[in-house]
Amino acid sequence: MNTDNSNVRTILTGDRPTGRLHLGHFVGSLKSRVQLQEKHRQFILVADMQALTDNNGNPAKVRENVLEVVTDYLAVGIDPQRTTICLQSALPAISELAMLYLNFTTVARLERNPTIRSEIVHRGFERSVPAGFLCYPVSQAADITAFDADLVPVGEDQAPLIELANEIVTRVNNQSGKSTLKNMEGLYSETPRLPGVDGKSKMSKSSSNSITLGSSPEEIRAAVRQMYTDPKHIRVSDPGTVEGNVVFSFLDAFDQDKNEVDALKEHYRAGGLGDMVLKRRLEDLLQSLLEPIREQRKRFAADPEYVLSVLRTGTEKSRDVTSETLCRVRKDLGHFIL
Amino acid sequence: MNTDNSNVRTILTGDRPTGRLHLGHFVGSLKSRVQLQEKHRQFILVADMQALTDNNGNPAKVRENVLEVVTDYLAVGIDPQRTTICLQSALPAISELAMLYLNFTTVARLERNPTIRSEIVHRGFERSVPAGFLCYPVSQAADITAFDADLVPVGEDQAPLIELANEIVTRVNNQSGKSTLKNMEGLYSETPRLPGVDGKSKMSKSSSNSITLGSSPEEIRAAVRQMYTDPKHIRVSDPGTVEGNVVFSFLDAFDQDKNEVDALKEHYRAGGLGDMVLKRRLEDLLQSLLEPIREQRKRFAADPEYVLSVLRTGTEKSRDVTSETLCRVRKDLGHFIL
Repeated sequence: MNTDNSNVRTILTGDRPTGRLHLGHFVGSLKSRVQLQEKHRQFILVADMQALTDNNGNPAKVRENVLEVVTDYLAVGIDPQRTTICLQSALPAISELAMLYLNFTTVARLERNPTIRSEIVHRGFERSVPAGFLCYPVSQAADITAFDADLVPVGEDQAPLIELANEIVTRVNNQSGKSTLKNMEGLYSETPRLPGVDGKSKMSKSSSNSITLGSSPEEIRAAVRQMYTDPKHIRVSDPGTVEGNVVFSFLDAFDQDKNEVDALKEHYRAGGLGDMVLKRRLEDLLQSLLEPIREQRKRFAADPEYVLSVLRTGTEKSRDVTSETLCRVRKDLGHFIL
Repeated sequence: MNTDNSNVRTILTGDRPTGRLHLGHFVGSLKSRVQLQEKHRQFILVADMQALTDNNGNPAKVRENVLEVVTDYLAVGIDPQRTTICLQSALPAISELAMLYLNFTTVARLERNPTIRSEIVHRGFERSVPAGFLCYPVSQAADITAFDADLVPVGEDQAPLIELANEIVTRVNNQSGKSTLKNMEGLYSETPRLPGVDGKSKMSKSSSNSITLGSSPEEIRAAVRQMYTDPKHIRVSDPGTVEGNVVFSFLDAFDQDKNEVDALKEHYRAGGLGDMVLKRRLEDLLQSLLEPIREQRKRFAADPEYVLSVLRTGTEKSRDVTSETLCRVRKDLGHFIL
């Protein structure tokens, strides 16, 4: 149960609803959210407004994935009694804070952000970068501060976003002369990013190299079978390479028996251990992990009214929290309040 | 009376509340708003959010001028029964639309805007331009479209802002495949900009070269006395220059007797007409113009509760109008609506 005890720290986390959640999300964030909800006040934001900053041409993709993502949360064990799940576009205070915060940073500062710079290259935006995409870190600062979050679970590559958000917090507090907004800490995941099945890049909703949480036993089997290993490891007796071998990355992520995994790596390197043995081991692990999640997912997917009600209830609670923050910011900054 | 007749066109206009309104506003916009309210559905937006885009360090200036500006509107004859006066920061749908529209334009497009470029130079922002300042034309597009405005009274220099807003409208409509948003027309003022008393630049709240609407008879007299004329016109008998002569600019703006003004110009050019004769004529005109406005202003200023109630009532009405627009935009674009 959440308490209003002030020692309880507030977490803001969330996802852009642009596809079904997959094992990469499970390892990188969902698993820890299920643990974090026990001792923290946790908000999960379905960031549909932010999803549009790089999917503006495909709003249907965003629309269709809002409830899918909430269903994924429930399936893995996010408990709506412990975690507040809410929808960004239904929280106007976030847009209002973002518009205010745009005045607390400069265009040059936003362009310097390495995440933005690399994503601009990666997505091929160059000079035609949508203004919304340049400004999304400001919108993220609005998300985080709107909930008075202390902790923000992020990947290492998102450290600059936390830095920018804290800069905005400092500027707002300097101007108000009060602790209007809280500084936040990034809660950095120790788990390495899960690679995609093809081994080419991280597991990604958009690259069809992922194993989604609702995958059927056959899909799991097929994905493991086609998993990238070591192309030079042709005969069982050949020595194999562990680095970049997706099966080993998955064993590192999912196999609880670390000693056994180390032994398998040694054996593989020396030669004499076939890919199929490893893949069978991995498949068993993934089948046992995903079976209950898939079953839960089916139950929730069969009751979309319930899923919707979870999102509605969480969003209403979040509306109060975020509106209060906006009021406090405007009052402390000395704005006219009608 | 407003009617819901669809032939009635909607006007959006407004001011940034950064100082008392002055004769420049009267000539450039207030006078025509009083006429326009007779046959149009007119909204006047007190743009306090936008005022922060270049006054972020001085929120008190914005706060203190919100009700002053509304008082000015009432004093010149803006009739709250005919015109809806509303406050930007109390209309969240405007911020929400602005955040959405940021995805429909690029950073390069915003940087190309000549108004933005000249203001960046003028205000000395250069590379440290606040992100909110770069984005304010998008916020203006949100203002205009939120009210479904057909007509936007603007100065010539604001034509690029109308162009950008229409571009966003076109993109939104292209994506929705419907007439979700209306294209708008700029309603360009034929009156030249009123110069400041010092003749150095246009009359401006910030340059203390203005005659505010609430000026006392003594202030009006003093302002006319120190008005810039022709520094080479030393003796009455000297020929004088009309161009750049502030007194003549004011006579052009305020003297109904155009033939007499032409005759005075001719006489002045030939020599034999003293500045004091002209200034006395101008002062009489300004005293008669401003006396009733000043008296009305005093009445309204003595009743701040009434002024506040006008703003509250207008803002509530505007909240309905702008929320409806936001809902329509989100629905037509196929967003998830909770």
